[in-house]
Amino acid sequence: MFKVAMIGAGSVVFVKKLLTDILGLPDLHDVTISLHDINAERLETAGMMARWTAEQFGANARVEEHLDRRAALADADFVINMVQIGMHEATLLDFEIPRKYGLKQTIADTLGIGGIFRGLRTIPFMVDMVGDMRELCPDALLLNYTNPMSILTQAVYEAFPEQKVVGLCHNVQNTAADLAEYLNVPVERLSYDCAGINHQTWFLKLRIDGEDAYPRLWQAMEDPQIFAKDKVRFELMRSFGWFVSESSEHNAEYTPYFLKRDDLIAEYDVPVDEYIRRSERNLGRYQDTRKQLLAGESFPLERSVEYGSQIIHAMVTGEPEVIYGNVKNTKLIENLPEDCCVEVPIIVDRNGLRPCHVGKLPPELAGYCAPHTFVQDLTVKAALQGSRDRVHRAVLLDRHAASVLSIKEIRAMVEELIEAHGDAMPEGIRNSLRASEKAKRYA
Amino acid sequence: MFKVAMIGAGSVVFVKKLLTDILGLPDLHDVTISLHDINAERLETAGMMARWTAEQFGANARVEEHLDRRAALADADFVINMVQIGMHEATLLDFEIPRKYGLKQTIADTLGIGGIFRGLRTIPFMVDMVGDMRELCPDALLLNYTNPMSILTQAVYEAFPEQKVVGLCHNVQNTAADLAEYLNVPVERLSYDCAGINHQTWFLKLRIDGEDAYPRLWQAMEDPQIFAKDKVRFELMRSFGWFVSESSEHNAEYTPYFLKRDDLIAEYDVPVDEYIRRSERNLGRYQDTRKQLLAGESFPLERSVEYGSQIIHAMVTGEPEVIYGNVKNTKLIENLPEDCCVEVPIIVDRNGLRPCHVGKLPPELAGYCAPHTFVQDLTVKAALQGSRDRVHRAVLLDRHAASVLSIKEIRAMVEELIEAHGDAMPEGIRNSLRASEKAKRYA
Amino acid sequence: MFKVAMIGAGSVVFVKKLLTDILGLPDLHDVTISLHDINAERLETAGMMARWTAEQFGANARVEEHLDRRAALADADFVINMVQIGMHEATLLDFEIPRKYGLKQTIADTLGIGGIFRGLRTIPFMVDMVGDMRELCPDALLLNYTNPMSILTQAVYEAFPEQKVVGLCHNVQNTAADLAEYLNVPVERLSYDCAGINHQTWFLKLRIDGEDAYPRLWQAMEDPQIFAKDKVRFELMRSFGWFVSESSEHNAEYTPYFLKRDDLIAEYDVPVDEYIRRSERNLGRYQDTRKQLLAGESFPLERSVEYGSQIIHAMVTGEPEVIYGNVKNTKLIENLPEDCCVEVPIIVDRNGLRPCHVGKLPPELAGYCAPHTFVQDLTVKAALQGSRDRVHRAVLLDRHAASVLSIKEIRAMVEELIEAHGDAMPEGIRNSLRASEKAKRYA
Amino acid sequence: MFKVAMIGAGSVVFVKKLLTDILGLPDLHDVTISLHDINAERLETAGMMARWTAEQFGANARVEEHLDRRAALADADFVINMVQIGMHEATLLDFEIPRKYGLKQTIADTLGIGGIFRGLRTIPFMVDMVGDMRELCPDALLLNYTNPMSILTQAVYEAFPEQKVVGLCHNVQNTAADLAEYLNVPVERLSYDCAGINHQTWFLKLRIDGEDAYPRLWQAMEDPQIFAKDKVRFELMRSFGWFVSESSEHNAEYTPYFLKRDDLIAEYDVPVDEYIRRSERNLGRYQDTRKQLLAGESFPLERSVEYGSQIIHAMVTGEPEVIYGNVKNTKLIENLPEDCCVEVPIIVDRNGLRPCHVGKLPPELAGYCAPHTFVQDLTVKAALQGSRDRVHRAVLLDRHAASVLSIKEIRAMVEELIEAHGDAMPEGIRNSLRASEKAKRYA
Repeated sequence: MFKVAMIGAGSVVFVKKLLTDILGLPDLHDVTISLHDINAERLETAGMMARWTAEQFGANARVEEHLDRRAALADADFVINMVQIGMHEATLLDFEIPRKYGLKQTIADTLGIGGIFRGLRTIPFMVDMVGDMRELCPDALLLNYTNPMSILTQAVYEAFPEQKVVGLCHNVQNTAADLAEYLNVPVERLSYDCAGINHQTWFLKLRIDGEDAYPRLWQAMEDPQIFAKDKVRFELMRSFGWFVSESSEHNAEYTPYFLKRDDLIAEYDVPVDEYIRRSERNLGRYQDTRKQLLAGESFPLERSVEYGSQIIHAMVTGEPEVIYGNVKNTKLIENLPEDCCVEVPIIVDRNGLRPCHVGKLPPELAGYCAPHTFVQDLTVKAALQGSRDRVHRAVLLDRHAASVLSIKEIRAMVEELIEAHGDAMPEGIRNSLRASEKAKRYA
Repeated sequence: MFKVAMIGAGSVVFVKKLLTDILGLPDLHDVTISLHDINAERLETAGMMARWTAEQFGANARVEEHLDRRAALADADFVINMVQIGMHEATLLDFEIPRKYGLKQTIADTLGIGGIFRGLRTIPFMVDMVGDMRELCPDALLLNYTNPMSILTQAVYEAFPEQKVVGLCHNVQNTAADLAEYLNVPVERLSYDCAGINHQTWFLKLRIDGEDAYPRLWQAMEDPQIFAKDKVRFELMRSFGWFVSESSEHNAEYTPYFLKRDDLIAEYDVPVDEYIRRSERNLGRYQDTRKQLLAGESFPLERSVEYGSQIIHAMVTGEPEVIYGNVKNTKLIENLPEDCCVEVPIIVDRNGLRPCHVGKLPPELAGYCAPHTFVQDLTVKAALQGSRDRVHRAVLLDRHAASVLSIKEIRAMVEELIEAHGDAMPEGIRNSLRASEKAKRYA
Repeated sequence: MFKVAMIGAGSVVFVKKLLTDILGLPDLHDVTISLHDINAERLETAGMMARWTAEQFGANARVEEHLDRRAALADADFVINMVQIGMHEATLLDFEIPRKYGLKQTIADTLGIGGIFRGLRTIPFMVDMVGDMRELCPDALLLNYTNPMSILTQAVYEAFPEQKVVGLCHNVQNTAADLAEYLNVPVERLSYDCAGINHQTWFLKLRIDGEDAYPRLWQAMEDPQIFAKDKVRFELMRSFGWFVSESSEHNAEYTPYFLKRDDLIAEYDVPVDEYIRRSERNLGRYQDTRKQLLAGESFPLERSVEYGSQIIHAMVTGEPEVIYGNVKNTKLIENLPEDCCVEVPIIVDRNGLRPCHVGKLPPELAGYCAPHTFVQDLTVKAALQGSRDRVHRAVLLDRHAASVLSIKEIRAMVEELIEAHGDAMPEGIRNSLRASEKAKRYA
Repeated sequence: MFKVAMIGAGSVVFVKKLLTDILGLPDLHDVTISLHDINAERLETAGMMARWTAEQFGANARVEEHLDRRAALADADFVINMVQIGMHEATLLDFEIPRKYGLKQTIADTLGIGGIFRGLRTIPFMVDMVGDMRELCPDALLLNYTNPMSILTQAVYEAFPEQKVVGLCHNVQNTAADLAEYLNVPVERLSYDCAGINHQTWFLKLRIDGEDAYPRLWQAMEDPQIFAKDKVRFELMRSFGWFVSESSEHNAEYTPYFLKRDDLIAEYDVPVDEYIRRSERNLGRYQDTRKQLLAGESFPLERSVEYGSQIIHAMVTGEPEVIYGNVKNTKLIENLPEDCCVEVPIIVDRNGLRPCHVGKLPPELAGYCAPHTFVQDLTVKAALQGSRDRVHRAVLLDRHAASVLSIKEIRAMVEELIEAHGDAMPEGIRNSLRASEKAKRYA
């Protein structure tokens, strides 16, 4: 018997996806699923979904709902974090205020101005929750699915060096599926070797049945129909030499190349404000799911590509698995900064997670990823140290913001965002003056 | 008796400055000064200047002029490099072609598109000259004064790991003088602790008579007259928290904040195309100096702030000196990439140069410098490996170019520059196809 | 179809063991087995054995015998090295000469005076063979089973940084079986986390069904019958806190604690000269096997614990495996010297081998292993650089030799061994003078 | 005006030496000398000596005596530590108990069983005193002269990472004087480049007037009269290739080569129990000095080779100095363990101390020093963590003890020493059980 706590279980669709994976494995049937959300209705819905799923697989899972997070965490073996702090309203601010200054975004949840502010308002929650974990389930592994992935994972290991934590995403798996489509082969025939930072993990090697598939991919790119499916990422491959994880819409906002001018937005089909639309759709999707549950309808039960269930299986049974996860850079990628958060292959078994040594990335890829690691580091330090200055410096070093705005525009935009998010900002940031303001006082 | 070879001695004004420093030290009078240039008239002028200077100090220096570089290098103890490859004409190309694409520059000799191409056309010369040194004076120390400083110094230690080399600049000393002016104290009362990369070395500590001088500098900045003297660097201090070396005109082109729009150029008084004017003035200055020499006129004989003579003195006499110099990052600055070229304090004595361990830069400063180290690394590798792709990638990662141009504009601009510089480009770059071109052939 | 070359295939018993593992996996039936030995009769025997084994498993393996090593290597995908250079005669010298000076040994194949000299005479062969591989099968993975494991593996990656190589041993697997016996549980219920250097890999974590098994092991040790089975290793656990891999007889000669006095040899049951007896038994075993083959007799066909077949299976099929192997310390174990040869967990799949980051060993274990890494490093450098001095220094730093002999005795013993091994020593070592001898000439 | 606190000022002869150096520099006349000792008579004597010295140099130094250590430390700029914890009586135990087990020593203050126990009883004092410094003079630099140098310096930077500290010794300077004698040149003509750990710092380069002096030193060694002056260190140079710092009598006990047998002791003239005699002489010397002071006699006033006054001068005036000091290994010596305590060149100026990057030691020298760094690390951790096990493991890894004794003899000796030192041992060590004892309880 082991216990999985799901924090932010109101994300019912995602809960169902993970439970389908977990309960679909007979070795994991003897489990306590402990759900937590602050929204009672959503929590109830998640509980219904969990019970329905367990029933389908004939699993003797014990499902608990807790409005009290501490009760959910107590004695957990695995804690899966999937909260969204601030919800749709905060997301709107992250889009609208920058847009007013001329800074457009597509997803805004990872890097850039949106990622930074999502990080700032989520880190206090992470510190609080992991503080509880240290007390209530100190040996549990934290599987973090909440974005911004790298920022939150790094915040955890900086604030709690003893905490076992891994940041999880599906960007590698989904990109593999994309590549299989462009190469017109079943994804099972692909093998690959990836490394980088989350959403900028590079397919360093790509093979079909063991043979290098890159020449074929370069050819595929020349087909305008294929190119059109992934314009930003193919242009990046043409420029930097390797294919990058995640998607064109995400990658468009991580660099200064695609979003700074209207002609480029048009040329590369960049879907500005895309995440606002997705966020609205997610609201609808939740409502539909609840209705279907109440009506006793069925849901499909297919395994997903998420690593969560594989990690739990490997740690519970001892059968090793290899996954991609986000962890502290203990010299794993030698030419990215030490202690930044990197995405690398990891062995999982009963001993927990053992990340692999990657060595050096090609210098163009390290140079592409490195600036983001400093933005992430400054965001984490801004939140943990309560430094308003470091929020500004994080944004000043963001490649996209710096390509569109002046220093003074960035300064005004950041101040307006801090003001607009109000109590959601870490207390130290709200209450601190910038160095230049302090300096004026001396004068 | 020891021997100093000066390569590119046609830079007569600079030769005179260094020789005034060297021959002004009685311990160094017993020296052979071996001058080399490929321009016979300039070489003759340099010889006249060297003899005049030696005479003023009563030094028994032996002055030799060599059109043959190998003769100049043979058995040298110190080799001072001050060449300029391509001269005024190449510099014009580096300004004019980017300007056509909308990319403005001020000095264009360090970083950015101008620094990259100046590097590309100078590295083959460096490899050739240091190859001769390995044969003719393998124990000599190379003091490199030629720009782009970091790129050329790194090219030397990558191509010849055994070669003793240090890159030298006066950006720290000149900035100290600037700071003394803004703080209204004699420079002798200042002490400071600096580290970073050349032209982006940060005054981590700044003291007047041992007391922290930063509060006073923040106050001084509030005086509009003082701010007006160094707008870019004061804005950078306000934003990032520390004062940076070099000058506002240089720094304007190293970041995306000051040169991308006309309003910013106006606001920060950025002198676009400044180096073209300086380069023209230098031509005139040479002519005047030659005339004065031929007319038997006198020149002032004041010590400069250059480190060259101090290094030679320390190595010849064994009396230790502490200088700032550019060397391979053997974990000296822990959060800049290993093996990049860093500017740090160095002990010099009879054992040669021993750089100091700095530790970690504040993360905002490491994040500010790091992108440039990747551009420098890619430029070095492009030239040494003959990779046209890596030229493109160096420019794509330049913070200023990426903030102004699209990928396709960068691509076209780089191709046009490679074409325009013709034989000055490393053979491998001229003859290689980009990966995407190669890929088309497969199709 | 893939090709496995077995070099030193005259070790017929070991060939049979590996082939049983490989051909026992249906995924690996479509293979070319290319056997090489310099002894024609042994090679013929190995071929017979290989064909018999393939037949038992119904594998369509193609078996080739080559007296010409280059023919065996050509186009191989995997090269398995199992040679023994110098054979029984050289081994006798490695025991007898040191014994004359008072230095006793048990196995003499890994570390200490015997390991050093076995390394010195095998490195020239390794350099020669891997030189051929660079030409004939540059992408092949070298699986080295020959001792001294760490010294030979390090020699390969130092001499050929591009060569893919892993050193393989069964010390972890066998120790797990020993521990299962002492703990009286089936080995399948044990899980463990190990790291260190070959033959000194520590069981940092040891669990039965996921629960810490160390308290139970400390109790088991108090049972005199169990203690008596593994006296040296239990005494080491009592002293240093963790259980070490390999066996008591090996470990006895790696430290200064058990072999320096007769009372200690008696107390800890140390089997002096053990390997001489084993080596003689091996000769007999080969003869018996040949006879049985010629007589058409059968052999058992049980899978072994060797990792070879798992590695090949993972790389051929892409199904990941986790093994323990010996590789270059690219900061994997942070408190052992960089670039030494460490034994760590490794992921194997179609991308090859990706070693895991271990972090720091407990300081007592790092302090226990570190001296040996310097001995290994000096042995490798002695052989590759042809430095007689470094042979002496390797032995001076060996913990056991230094505890028994004086500097002058070590000096005489080393000189006598170099002399006795004659042409088997690297040419540079035979022909070089020690620094002190050279110095005398100046006098 | 600045303040120097001298802790353990009852070492009157050493106080006088340092004050002669400090007050002999006119720049340092305006100083407060604050003396502390727990012995009132010795403290009074030190005060008399300090006033006498100040008077000789016409310095307006203010001399204070404090039996209260906190008063002495308050607002100090420099704290010089020269205490001896346990005095003569504890030293006798450190010699006598090991000798009973057959373990002989010469000085017993640095490494080996004597150094370990001297470290264990001094670390609690260091932690206590530096704890006071953090409160009363947090910016002061601690200059530690007390042995065991490396162990105590490491204990300070491990327990108080923010504390500025350097360990100081005269082993490099004295060895330079020895070498000058053997080479028959004035020491001023020597230059050298050293690195290693305290008392095992190697003269990597040695020059006379800039020319390599090693060939001449190898010749000098062949002269039996010169060899006889420094038998152990010459034998080490002959064996390892470089000359080591400190002295033959110290070095004899750091290795397994010279003290394990009576014939070796005789051959190398090793002065067993030497420090007991010195310690007795020191007692007499103090008595004589006090008498002379009371009688109004004069003392010589020659500068010593100690670095203390140079460091203070450089930090007070800002004129840089280069010294050798002991600091945390922040990758300064790449092939010694990170964070161990290394002796390297250091720049001192108003910014404090900046240690130099050394790179890799020759592997034989790193292999020679590395075992000691683990012993030191274990001793520090034993004391700070209160781990009786780690005391045992430190001794087990000592090269000399392990070459003479068995594990059980070491175990008994360590237990007897812990018992004999009683309250002087850190409380955690006195009260903790060894792992094997704890294990027995489970049984």
